[in-house]
Amino acid sequence: MSRIAYVNGRYLPHHSATVHVEDRGYQFSDGVYEVAAICDGRIIDETGHLKRLKRSLKELRISMPMKEQPLKAIFQEIIRRNRIDNGIFYLQITRGVARRDHPFPNEETKPGLVLTARSTARRNIGEEEKGIQVVTTRDIRWLRRDIKSISLLPNILAKQKAREKGVYEAWFVDDSGLITEGSSTNAWIVDKNGSVITRQLGPDILGGITRDTVISLAKQNGITILERPFTKDEAIVASEAFITSTTSFVTSVVGINENQIGNGKPGPVTKQLQKLYLNYCYNVGSNH
Amino acid sequence: MSRIAYVNGRYLPHHSATVHVEDRGYQFSDGVYEVAAICDGRIIDETGHLKRLKRSLKELRISMPMKEQPLKAIFQEIIRRNRIDNGIFYLQITRGVARRDHPFPNEETKPGLVLTARSTARRNIGEEEKGIQVVTTRDIRWLRRDIKSISLLPNILAKQKAREKGVYEAWFVDDSGLITEGSSTNAWIVDKNGSVITRQLGPDILGGITRDTVISLAKQNGITILERPFTKDEAIVASEAFITSTTSFVTSVVGINENQIGNGKPGPVTKQLQKLYLNYCYNVGSNH
Repeated sequence: MSRIAYVNGRYLPHHSATVHVEDRGYQFSDGVYEVAAICDGRIIDETGHLKRLKRSLKELRISMPMKEQPLKAIFQEIIRRNRIDNGIFYLQITRGVARRDHPFPNEETKPGLVLTARSTARRNIGEEEKGIQVVTTRDIRWLRRDIKSISLLPNILAKQKAREKGVYEAWFVDDSGLITEGSSTNAWIVDKNGSVITRQLGPDILGGITRDTVISLAKQNGITILERPFTKDEAIVASEAFITSTTSFVTSVVGINENQIGNGKPGPVTKQLQKLYLNYCYNVGSNH
Repeated sequence: MSRIAYVNGRYLPHHSATVHVEDRGYQFSDGVYEVAAICDGRIIDETGHLKRLKRSLKELRISMPMKEQPLKAIFQEIIRRNRIDNGIFYLQITRGVARRDHPFPNEETKPGLVLTARSTARRNIGEEEKGIQVVTTRDIRWLRRDIKSISLLPNILAKQKAREKGVYEAWFVDDSGLITEGSSTNAWIVDKNGSVITRQLGPDILGGITRDTVISLAKQNGITILERPFTKDEAIVASEAFITSTTSFVTSVVGINENQIGNGKPGPVTKQLQKLYLNYCYNVGSNH
């Protein structure tokens, strides 16, 4: 089946989904995005994604291209037209098309809105995972990582570094030796008491939607969450480690650089959070 | 006359110059650019722009979409088709179109190449200029500013701040109080001895092509150039200040924040450099 994209008011075959070369997203990375998961036909954390989207736009003073209800209708339509039961949709909003000039264009300039969607495999609850390795890399990004902008060049360079080392993810380390987050995921460790540690919200990291949900699920289930910075050295000797994101859900980290984490297998706290999160995504039970 | 753009092998009317929504330039700011000036039909510093372009691409490991000679032929053709005597062309190269995923796509992915051009007013040599004001703003950019990437979100936010304060440019100040450069220009001051100071090359600033040329012209004409960092405090008490870029040439700065620079009028060293640079651009004499 051919994919369908939404581009500025029209549903188009994927191959003809284009934007103007003077779209400020293309020339200045002047825009924001969201990626949301669809599990058994439902959008996971739609409210959280919309809230973050509006915050990112507000921080950059880009206006919402439409109200929330018609935007939600486009979410449903892009899912329907691409026949997604399990997958993701990608949404990008830019400051629109204007003659190339650094300052914001005049206020009549309409923001650009693009959505794409694609199917991914359904996750199997209870499936044994091997866990992933991560490498660390210097955090050279700009200082407003709380904005989910398309200014992702350092992120893709870090991800590429990880892939060339044969691993899935790179964790950014700031110049104080503190881990901020992964190139497209939040970073977590578990200490010897079973407390789960992840960096607090602020300009240094993106406020992950999966991060938020995992914190809520942990607290509901008696798992201690400590939102604070942690160092690379602390991570290396942690009992467990994991990453979270819309596309990686909760995934165990079993090695950091050359160091094995715990016994090199997914640990019990991570497994519990994985299970809680998968139940949250795939069950229409008490969590919804 | 309608403008013509070059997009991936084709010359197109400006309004139909489009790129795919999965061009990595649009989704990841995964690309680089150059802006070159055309003065009386000649491209200024074409060699310098090409050299920097190749360096930026190499740093990001994006391949040149074609050899230098056919690329130069496109420069001439875009100038001809847009009937530019005086103006600029804009060139952007991205890592190409691939299904959205952070790591580099496979090696067969062709880089994207887009050029646009437009006329601007011819500069009048000897015309009295009033000079501009600048404001300072915290430098929150990533740490590879030497790469001329399209990851320009902090730059446009800084430029917008300047415009809202009613001034032309914003100068970035790092957390040590040192000025790095402007949002789209290099920053310069002149001390009481008539020495010209601008930050040395390195990851903190973009190596401006106009900056290079001005340094050469200054040295040829017995003006002392000091390439070193300078603080905001030093700038405020400087005898003169100015900016350079492809589009602003050499432009006097007569105020920084609320502070008048020198006597509030363009100073003699700046005027001399302006004149040297304009002669360089508009004369086909000994400099070429």
